[in-house]
Amino acid sequence: MDLSRCSLNSITVRSLRLPELVDTAVAHGIPAIAPWRDIIDDLGAAKAAQVIRDAGLRVSSLCRGGMFTAEDAAARRAALDDNRRAIEQAHELGAAVLVLVCGPVVGRDPAGSREMIFDGISAIVDDARAANVPLGIEPLHPMMIADRSVITTLGEATTLAERVGDDIVGVVVDAYHVWWDVAIEHEITRAGKRILGFHVSDWVVPIIGQLSSRGLMGDGHIDLPRMRASVTAAGYDGDVEVEILSDSLWSRDPQEVVRSVRERFVTHV
Amino acid sequence: MDLSRCSLNSITVRSLRLPELVDTAVAHGIPAIAPWRDIIDDLGAAKAAQVIRDAGLRVSSLCRGGMFTAEDAAARRAALDDNRRAIEQAHELGAAVLVLVCGPVVGRDPAGSREMIFDGISAIVDDARAANVPLGIEPLHPMMIADRSVITTLGEATTLAERVGDDIVGVVVDAYHVWWDVAIEHEITRAGKRILGFHVSDWVVPIIGQLSSRGLMGDGHIDLPRMRASVTAAGYDGDVEVEILSDSLWSRDPQEVVRSVRERFVTHV
Repeated sequence: MDLSRCSLNSITVRSLRLPELVDTAVAHGIPAIAPWRDIIDDLGAAKAAQVIRDAGLRVSSLCRGGMFTAEDAAARRAALDDNRRAIEQAHELGAAVLVLVCGPVVGRDPAGSREMIFDGISAIVDDARAANVPLGIEPLHPMMIADRSVITTLGEATTLAERVGDDIVGVVVDAYHVWWDVAIEHEITRAGKRILGFHVSDWVVPIIGQLSSRGLMGDGHIDLPRMRASVTAAGYDGDVEVEILSDSLWSRDPQEVVRSVRERFVTHV
Repeated sequence: MDLSRCSLNSITVRSLRLPELVDTAVAHGIPAIAPWRDIIDDLGAAKAAQVIRDAGLRVSSLCRGGMFTAEDAAARRAALDDNRRAIEQAHELGAAVLVLVCGPVVGRDPAGSREMIFDGISAIVDDARAANVPLGIEPLHPMMIADRSVITTLGEATTLAERVGDDIVGVVVDAYHVWWDVAIEHEITRAGKRILGFHVSDWVVPIIGQLSSRGLMGDGHIDLPRMRASVTAAGYDGDVEVEILSDSLWSRDPQEVVRSVRERFVTHV
């Protein structure tokens, strides 16, 4: 697809701090960025928002809130406080969505962990509503259940959003995390207008570490144009984020990486 | 659980050839084994069956048939031939089930790959019926979709078995592959009497390579007694295989590994 809805997620070029990320997006004709919070915290949200606004860029998402699971109540309360700070930052940045990564399994108890997540989202939904910051539950690949997210399928994320019962809560579809699912097209259709974000990268093997083995679009096994068509048919018309956690890309010159991202976005998404 | 239904999968102690595996199981009071085909091919199935029978052991499964997916028709035909040989071997060994590992995704097309698998199983079901060898579709973890199996959930495996429509086809539940699934308890119940095998190991992180990062029961995040209870309640009363693909265990003395397996089976399954 053309670049008019392309967003550059900061982790794809993680050596860049926010001003460099902004300059890079502008230089390459990419109209949106998706910062992780570390590069916002560098400057503070107000100053960061100013830098982004001055460059005329959109913020497709802020990554991330969530991480509601913990063994003890104090840690779960601290997570709520952190989520409220994230909502404030997302508001300041005008982010289209605050991504929620929904915490690893605790105590050999996926079901109990999922209840913690429901409780956590329910506790911050009024804050999100007040700040007009949509919350996007992003299911992660099942290989990350013990490290990052006990929410592992789009169907599960949609059901959770429905259960919370406020339209400020939706889902984020990251192709890398959900493409393997036999029900993915059905679940994209079911999620419909709850889809608040769409992320692309590619599935390449071997997996060297769960987190940072992703590939550039076109290098792997995912039929991205097909998934893009499904997400579009479901009603999503927001930005499409390129979010590639990759030891291989991280070792390359970021400007060269963004040239590849740009090219692959046009040819393989 | 006690050892009366314990089976030692050969890959757990992969340096042992069949006669050593048999001696090891007997020495440790384990009443069943589950050989991979490499150690059967060493001796030939008839001789292997004799060695196992003479020791008074059961064969809980033969690993593996399947791998029906391929770009070209000739390779898919070769897979059918190989599956027929596997059925003969399983018959000779008196294996309770022939495990089907259902091939990686081909051509960025999971749906098309799944049709190849349906066609493949359908093509061998009469052979299985004639030899009285049950076929067990084993869903593998979604991180293996591009390497080993495009069947990634128990629900999908059960639906596929139902679609083939012969009771000689069922499913195999491997805790490592399916524990992450929000619907796992429902799907175990739904699979019911179609469950032809139950495998245990544990999910430990980090994942160092998709294939061989498994842990001993009790070392990871899976609530194995709970899953064992679910599988039992669903009607499965066959052997419980310890199948641990682990670079760490493979580097240890196999007799010491089996002592640990035995102990953990009693305390953590």
